[in-house]
Amino acid sequence: MSKPLILVVNDDGITAPGIKALVESVMPLGEVVVVAPDSPQSGMGHAITINKPLRLNEVHVLEGVRSFACSGTPVDCVKIAVDKVLHRKPDLCVSGINHGSNSSINIIYSGTMSAAVEASLEGIPSVGFSLCDYSHEADFEPSKKYVRYVAEQLLKNGIPKHSLLNVNIPKLSAADMKGLKICRQAHAKWEEEYVERTDPFGRPYYWLTGKFVNYDKGQDTDEWALANGYVSVVPVQHDLTAHHVIPFINENWEV
Amino acid sequence: MSKPLILVVNDDGITAPGIKALVESVMPLGEVVVVAPDSPQSGMGHAITINKPLRLNEVHVLEGVRSFACSGTPVDCVKIAVDKVLHRKPDLCVSGINHGSNSSINIIYSGTMSAAVEASLEGIPSVGFSLCDYSHEADFEPSKKYVRYVAEQLLKNGIPKHSLLNVNIPKLSAADMKGLKICRQAHAKWEEEYVERTDPFGRPYYWLTGKFVNYDKGQDTDEWALANGYVSVVPVQHDLTAHHVIPFINENWEV
Repeated sequence: MSKPLILVVNDDGITAPGIKALVESVMPLGEVVVVAPDSPQSGMGHAITINKPLRLNEVHVLEGVRSFACSGTPVDCVKIAVDKVLHRKPDLCVSGINHGSNSSINIIYSGTMSAAVEASLEGIPSVGFSLCDYSHEADFEPSKKYVRYVAEQLLKNGIPKHSLLNVNIPKLSAADMKGLKICRQAHAKWEEEYVERTDPFGRPYYWLTGKFVNYDKGQDTDEWALANGYVSVVPVQHDLTAHHVIPFINENWEV
Repeated sequence: MSKPLILVVNDDGITAPGIKALVESVMPLGEVVVVAPDSPQSGMGHAITINKPLRLNEVHVLEGVRSFACSGTPVDCVKIAVDKVLHRKPDLCVSGINHGSNSSINIIYSGTMSAAVEASLEGIPSVGFSLCDYSHEADFEPSKKYVRYVAEQLLKNGIPKHSLLNVNIPKLSAADMKGLKICRQAHAKWEEEYVERTDPFGRPYYWLTGKFVNYDKGQDTDEWALANGYVSVVPVQHDLTAHHVIPFINENWEV
């Protein structure tokens, strides 16, 4: 039997420490191939490149791992990996490890998670990993055993069709981490404020700043798990239908 | 009582014919303010601009309508509209009318729909409209009465918290349109192929091409509705939790 084929992607770019930690975590589990953006792509959501062509260049990330830098978005990386780089559909796609949380509503802005969603659309068991530490010097060591465990479970058990995983890891020492917790996405949002500046020519420009606010007091959420020392595991779907709203419309509208 | 405040956004850019048709459709319903990208932003998904500042310039779209062009993504437009342009939270956000379908899985790549999702995150009743005709010369006239009806319903009835609407309009004459149908998102996907070309310097580059494939034979989907002459209305949520997968993980993993 051939070894499992594992596609590694991210959104912080191919030189980010987080992707190296991810490759190291899953290398014992199979044949690893990396296709990642050639520049940081945080906050790119599910963007794809339509109106210009992509570049793809073989690069070195870690000894013995075929690696490619792509000029596109995280979602582009998955698409081009599947069509042009891999000789068969991978058995697993892992994305990350992201520098910073993708819990709760952050998932919707996240290139890391959108890459994992795209792999799931291709029918590939997939998961995005994020460490709740934005620093470039973040310590990814305590994350590795959880990353490997989750990847092993996906290879062993698969995951129901049309779903994938969003895994967030608290910024804690290995000793302080309490294990995994299966959760739902907390209802939270960013309260944003644009800071206005004036350029040397007298014209205004605006910087996005914001504060993350969690309105959800449930103890079954990813935010609760992370605040209480757990690694949060949220199963995610890409069917966005709000089935419970269909009766509301049928009752209130004349259709 | 003051008139309802209606925010209009899109992803094809402020000069696209679709946004003009949308403004014309909703103008009788309230005070309309437009904040739209200064360039086409199709396929941008839920991308936001983090690492550079935004520009915002007042422009003319239609007589009597305050309009602003923003240098960011569709989601940026909603964020900056709420924080910097509008004096209060709008009563409705309408996005589009997109040139081309955003039915089924297209929603996930769509800047039009991501702008509507962002408004919904802000607690604003919101809807994205798309006409299944990619042409710049598309005829938006038959769409207008449906756009106005849906906007009226949202102003009158609101929509349950954490949800919004994805409305797609078939490319048909007014006489051939059969009315609205409330649906779920069809399970479909793009089968992609990158076309490889060689630049004048001998290096390869890749263009994304693809074919939309609907695997879902249900007669309650948006694809079915559109293929049968209906305007599809899919209620959409931004909680991505796959609740049905939580028991699967708890049964199969040791957590």
